[in-house]
Amino acid sequence: MSLLVTGVYADRSRGTDMVSTHTVEGLIALRRDLHQHPEPAWREFYTTARIVEALRARDVDEIHYGPAVLEEAARMNVPDEEGIAEWYDRALSAGVDPELLEPMEGGYTGAIAVIERGEGPTVGLRVDIDALPITESDAEHHYPAAEGFRSKHDGYMHACGHDAHATFGVGVIDAVLASDFAGTLKVFFQPGEERIAGGKPMAESGHLDDVEYLLAVHVGLDHPTGEVVAGIDGFLAVRQFLAEFTGESSHAGAHPEQGANAVQALATAVQNLYAIPRHTDGATRVNAGIVGGGTATNIVPDESFVEGEVRGETTALADYTYERAERVLASAAEMHECDVAVETRGQAPSAESDDELVAVVAEVARESPGVTAVTERDELGGSEDATYLMRHVQDSGGDATYVGVGTDHPGGHHTSTFDVDEASIEIAVDVLAGAVLALSDRDV
Amino acid sequence: MSLLVTGVYADRSRGTDMVSTHTVEGLIALRRDLHQHPEPAWREFYTTARIVEALRARDVDEIHYGPAVLEEAARMNVPDEEGIAEWYDRALSAGVDPELLEPMEGGYTGAIAVIERGEGPTVGLRVDIDALPITESDAEHHYPAAEGFRSKHDGYMHACGHDAHATFGVGVIDAVLASDFAGTLKVFFQPGEERIAGGKPMAESGHLDDVEYLLAVHVGLDHPTGEVVAGIDGFLAVRQFLAEFTGESSHAGAHPEQGANAVQALATAVQNLYAIPRHTDGATRVNAGIVGGGTATNIVPDESFVEGEVRGETTALADYTYERAERVLASAAEMHECDVAVETRGQAPSAESDDELVAVVAEVARESPGVTAVTERDELGGSEDATYLMRHVQDSGGDATYVGVGTDHPGGHHTSTFDVDEASIEIAVDVLAGAVLALSDRDV
Amino acid sequence: MSLLVTGVYADRSRGTDMVSTHTVEGLIALRRDLHQHPEPAWREFYTTARIVEALRARDVDEIHYGPAVLEEAARMNVPDEEGIAEWYDRALSAGVDPELLEPMEGGYTGAIAVIERGEGPTVGLRVDIDALPITESDAEHHYPAAEGFRSKHDGYMHACGHDAHATFGVGVIDAVLASDFAGTLKVFFQPGEERIAGGKPMAESGHLDDVEYLLAVHVGLDHPTGEVVAGIDGFLAVRQFLAEFTGESSHAGAHPEQGANAVQALATAVQNLYAIPRHTDGATRVNAGIVGGGTATNIVPDESFVEGEVRGETTALADYTYERAERVLASAAEMHECDVAVETRGQAPSAESDDELVAVVAEVARESPGVTAVTERDELGGSEDATYLMRHVQDSGGDATYVGVGTDHPGGHHTSTFDVDEASIEIAVDVLAGAVLALSDRDV
Amino acid sequence: MSLLVTGVYADRSRGTDMVSTHTVEGLIALRRDLHQHPEPAWREFYTTARIVEALRARDVDEIHYGPAVLEEAARMNVPDEEGIAEWYDRALSAGVDPELLEPMEGGYTGAIAVIERGEGPTVGLRVDIDALPITESDAEHHYPAAEGFRSKHDGYMHACGHDAHATFGVGVIDAVLASDFAGTLKVFFQPGEERIAGGKPMAESGHLDDVEYLLAVHVGLDHPTGEVVAGIDGFLAVRQFLAEFTGESSHAGAHPEQGANAVQALATAVQNLYAIPRHTDGATRVNAGIVGGGTATNIVPDESFVEGEVRGETTALADYTYERAERVLASAAEMHECDVAVETRGQAPSAESDDELVAVVAEVARESPGVTAVTERDELGGSEDATYLMRHVQDSGGDATYVGVGTDHPGGHHTSTFDVDEASIEIAVDVLAGAVLALSDRDV
Repeated sequence: MSLLVTGVYADRSRGTDMVSTHTVEGLIALRRDLHQHPEPAWREFYTTARIVEALRARDVDEIHYGPAVLEEAARMNVPDEEGIAEWYDRALSAGVDPELLEPMEGGYTGAIAVIERGEGPTVGLRVDIDALPITESDAEHHYPAAEGFRSKHDGYMHACGHDAHATFGVGVIDAVLASDFAGTLKVFFQPGEERIAGGKPMAESGHLDDVEYLLAVHVGLDHPTGEVVAGIDGFLAVRQFLAEFTGESSHAGAHPEQGANAVQALATAVQNLYAIPRHTDGATRVNAGIVGGGTATNIVPDESFVEGEVRGETTALADYTYERAERVLASAAEMHECDVAVETRGQAPSAESDDELVAVVAEVARESPGVTAVTERDELGGSEDATYLMRHVQDSGGDATYVGVGTDHPGGHHTSTFDVDEASIEIAVDVLAGAVLALSDRDV
Repeated sequence: MSLLVTGVYADRSRGTDMVSTHTVEGLIALRRDLHQHPEPAWREFYTTARIVEALRARDVDEIHYGPAVLEEAARMNVPDEEGIAEWYDRALSAGVDPELLEPMEGGYTGAIAVIERGEGPTVGLRVDIDALPITESDAEHHYPAAEGFRSKHDGYMHACGHDAHATFGVGVIDAVLASDFAGTLKVFFQPGEERIAGGKPMAESGHLDDVEYLLAVHVGLDHPTGEVVAGIDGFLAVRQFLAEFTGESSHAGAHPEQGANAVQALATAVQNLYAIPRHTDGATRVNAGIVGGGTATNIVPDESFVEGEVRGETTALADYTYERAERVLASAAEMHECDVAVETRGQAPSAESDDELVAVVAEVARESPGVTAVTERDELGGSEDATYLMRHVQDSGGDATYVGVGTDHPGGHHTSTFDVDEASIEIAVDVLAGAVLALSDRDV
Repeated sequence: MSLLVTGVYADRSRGTDMVSTHTVEGLIALRRDLHQHPEPAWREFYTTARIVEALRARDVDEIHYGPAVLEEAARMNVPDEEGIAEWYDRALSAGVDPELLEPMEGGYTGAIAVIERGEGPTVGLRVDIDALPITESDAEHHYPAAEGFRSKHDGYMHACGHDAHATFGVGVIDAVLASDFAGTLKVFFQPGEERIAGGKPMAESGHLDDVEYLLAVHVGLDHPTGEVVAGIDGFLAVRQFLAEFTGESSHAGAHPEQGANAVQALATAVQNLYAIPRHTDGATRVNAGIVGGGTATNIVPDESFVEGEVRGETTALADYTYERAERVLASAAEMHECDVAVETRGQAPSAESDDELVAVVAEVARESPGVTAVTERDELGGSEDATYLMRHVQDSGGDATYVGVGTDHPGGHHTSTFDVDEASIEIAVDVLAGAVLALSDRDV
Repeated sequence: MSLLVTGVYADRSRGTDMVSTHTVEGLIALRRDLHQHPEPAWREFYTTARIVEALRARDVDEIHYGPAVLEEAARMNVPDEEGIAEWYDRALSAGVDPELLEPMEGGYTGAIAVIERGEGPTVGLRVDIDALPITESDAEHHYPAAEGFRSKHDGYMHACGHDAHATFGVGVIDAVLASDFAGTLKVFFQPGEERIAGGKPMAESGHLDDVEYLLAVHVGLDHPTGEVVAGIDGFLAVRQFLAEFTGESSHAGAHPEQGANAVQALATAVQNLYAIPRHTDGATRVNAGIVGGGTATNIVPDESFVEGEVRGETTALADYTYERAERVLASAAEMHECDVAVETRGQAPSAESDDELVAVVAEVARESPGVTAVTERDELGGSEDATYLMRHVQDSGGDATYVGVGTDHPGGHHTSTFDVDEASIEIAVDVLAGAVLALSDRDV
């Protein structure tokens, strides 16, 4: 039985002129609305506003958004004012209420909903909401294009399903509200996951401190519609950085000796970054993903940069690699009489899903309509900053799991033809809300 | 006595509605017009059109422009169609006659004027006409800004005096037409010097083949108004190149082994380019002036590039260094399973000024009004593709010299406050036309 | 009950004037004799001779040694004639019968003993016999020094227990001969393990072709006396290589450009070897262990070399890394106009111990006197060329396991104070011979 | 007329049992004796002893040798005790009087002879005395081999003519003693030139302080017998260094992360040493002449070294390059968590020959018997630490020149078939002694 029974919700509906999301159809409409308005990290103004509106239309006890949901000191890779203002204006142009936007000024996106229903455990659900700098396909066979809800922001796209994730969050609230849930439910609509920049500040916001069980969720991951993975592991801890070298320019023909060559520093650094020793404790990774430098063919370059990352099978392995990387960058600068400024741009630890919680989710999933296969465990093999929230809960004695909800996706994640099979929305809501209820029962 | 006597020219004037350049005032007006319309290499549409108009307004025997003045195969670093079209349109918008522009379609800029006056030597004068991608100062103390003839093309500027050079060419024609010159004068208005891309195609166009004496000229070079250098040497031979590496991208976390890393190839190349062995025969130079590569922090980069250059005290030394550079680039690509495409973007040989011709210019200069100091020889220490034209003449048995005409320039060459003291225009015309006449007399 | 009951063997003793090894005391005497005569890879002349003498003193059906026990084409890292001759002479000086040595001329060390006792399975036991270039401690607390059987070859030492391994081989023969074993036992005394150079040629000699069960053994490995590991895994596949760069020398001051710099090639190679991409399938390793090059401070170096190695969690991973390494070496040579010759110096695949055989050994071990703890599985985390023999048997459908026999060793493996607790000799013989018998029973 | 008239010297002979050098034949015998006993830097025990004996056999006013002729703090690249002792013993074995050797203990080789003959200028002559680590040819066509005076020290050879130089010094003393010279003559027999290690300590010994004119001399340099170059210039300033990296070893398979890789530091350093920017003021050179590192294929290397050098057309250019090199070495160590110790092993500044002195030598040479061609100036294009002595004199207001005396040499300098045409000995003595007399006359 699906928890999303139309009739149940209808009763609780308070009738607004906004898109109704109190039914499966409503959820699909919300997802398509968000899909048309993909927004990158720290600029999810439209998205957050739509979520807040949906929360206001429901019997939610607390709605938090703006600076209150993010630990200021932990925010990473925030764009400059201009970059933020552009998307703020786009949201306004798209018809968002200015009053709604105001608390988000400066890029404080994301929201938290709290439902309190008497004695019971505090259960959290984390969903992420940001999009990617990818141009969406306009091919006929691409469903959003065919159905008319393709991205309205050229060069940006929900190519990883976070539009669906946000919708799951709202759907679970509906389902829980319609149930006899006892306890507290907190839904975390997290910004900036694609830059692994938003997990840490939300994890450290204080709102996670009393969460006893945390569910995080991702759609797809090469599992078809109907498959559920109860506990995903194998997150590589990751740290992304921007290193900027500053030297001294000079004319390459007339005064080569007067330069402090930032491109030589860069080349030395790149060679040695990739050569950081492997570690016996497990896998590590290094990448110099984007590099650049110099101003003219005949000028000794006085500027260069590398945007790179390190990863590790464990957080300690990523830390080991990062420390080595810092040393390489500093020494390469020193060698060529340059300065280097290194800034962390994104970060996420590794994490494990807890057995107990995995078992609960698996059991619920096996009973859920539409679910055809349940896997207890799978490896991600990538990185994800839900791990910050998971570890925050685990470090306080709670349990966490990262749930995979299969969806038939024609293109791979992060490609221009990625899409979500909307049938998986109801499945996800059923499994997640079912798990919330099961945890509630279990505890009392 | 100045050769630019107003009365003399007036007689030859055929009265057009264009800016008259038949007087010193006319030359200054022409220079300011060109200064306001700075155009980069292969896009000197407005400039060439104005020159052709000026030539048509004079008793010039032949005017060549379009593909006829450039050896097709030798053109380097030609922008793509779009880049050319943009400036073509700007010229149209600035009021240039479309019929005049047509032969230049595709970026065939530059012009050659021929004056035939009976028996006598064939003397050439080479001036260059292109501008730089530099934003001109709008400070009050910057004369073009104060006088209202600052660049109309944002981001572009005549910051090396080629506006004055083109004017010298027209002025010398006026002066020679007003004289009893016997022989043939060819004035080469060469495009694309700043990219050292236009010298070779003009040198190989055929028009230089019968030139017995070639004068090239540059204004400024840290010499004040009134100083003349009769023969400049010490040109470093130069070759500029663009190397583009193409590899294979892959996810840096999930499949590092599947990539063919174009940034590693770049780093290896840069390290080894700078390490090309020095040469016992003289100075060499290498520079990796601009580099870039990669698409995302977490993707093994599949593309990178380096725009670099090599130089040598002699052409052989530049060739030696270039051959080594090619080997480095190819091997670095090979090492990382990448392809590399290397394209020459600009080139100029070294050259020497011939004693005999230097002596003629020096003698004329000493007698010229306004000239306060004459130096026989000076070193440039940079590169310049007038050397192609000089060597072409020398290889056929002729003589060439590169003349420096001082000018008080407030900012250095290639800076936003560079400017030419317009008093040096008359001096340059006097010295150059005087040398042309002296060569004519000498030969007969 | 120990299989090494003195009385039983005494009956079979045929009384020679050689050191008797037919008792535990005899085995210990043999071990000490070998310990005093440590010999490096392909130069185990004394060792092989002593083993052959011991075999001749027993009722062994076939004794093979010399070229017949090694596939010629697979021999790696064989020293030059002089290096071999030196140790050949040492063996003669130590009193070895010249007739016995003759078949080993050219470095054909190692031996194979065959015992045929009717119908039954063919069981193999592989032990290695070579020593290390380490100077043995002469400290009082170092037992071999205190007891007077310290190495007689300065700079060489049995620092990894292969003296004990050879003794195990002889002891197992004694025990099996004294038993009612039915089947064929082949004991492989393998040379050159420390250079991972002897495993492949013995594996491919043909003598392994009919082996159905193979036991390999190592003493110590940080397990104390009394502990047995029935199946060791986690061998890293390894390939060691020597790369020699040859360029062109020239005077570094007078003619730097005439050189082809083999040290620049080396440096480029080293930087890029360590930067070979990590692999998602598992651990890899790279090391440039020994490098050298050049002849004089003021000469552009025309020679250099690197002795290095790659490893992989699987043979495929080692192969992947080796292929990348070859490419790096070739391209680095090409870049600096050098030649490079790359030679494989040692090699071993990864391997797994088979469950069935592990179970047999574990069961026998649990019943063996002196054994206080049995572990079924452990990881080696290093490399070992017994894997060649193991895989050869496995590829023909047989089973193999690598057995660990604990010993209290004061210093670590490959250190100057390593030593074997001689009490572990009897334990090893009991477990190994017990397993041989169990396999015999099991099969019939 | 040759200054070396037999009759004149005979009178001064005091009859010893040593090889007489008071005739041309005597000089040739001395040269051959030294040729048979080639000794490397700081180990010229036999050579110095033979020189001191020759001085004692003459009417020389002061003979200095031992620590007194060398500024202790300036000695470079002195071998260790064992290395010195070996050659000390060889000298004893060759029959040198132990009493004579004693002051040289510790490697204080070299000598200074002073002749005072009344009022007149103080003139210095510098000759060097050390040999090279080259094995001398034993081919029939190699004159020393054919005539039986080939090197007695295997692996060492006078392959640069310093045996002849020392002989010149003795010959000039003979000639001056036989003349009416007025003034002071100091002859400097300098050790350690081949390592550019002995010039500085002798220059700073105090003995040069009052020298007004200094002549230095070299034989050969591709000039045939009969040619004299009065003033050689174009010495490249040079600095040789030994850099030793120390890291941390670890097992390359088991614990790659625990190492601090001294070979990676070395490779990074080498790549960046060669890439030190060229300088606009003139030629520079860099060479990593000898490198090495590591202990075993499977051990992360904890030690490595590079013996290298930098040069410059001027001392300032060499200093520039050396400072950059130091920075590269320090940063490369830092990058790989290694320490680096850098020691200067040899050094020499650039220097110029003074016009006045060149003119004197040229004039004398033109009048000398046997001289067929006199060149005033030539370029060396290499390095030589006579420059320390030259600059010391010049800095005190004196003049110096470096004289080339041609000789037909079959093999090039520093090759196994190098040899000196002994006819050039008399020519050299005539020219140098002639110059000493000319300076004496000139001054009075």
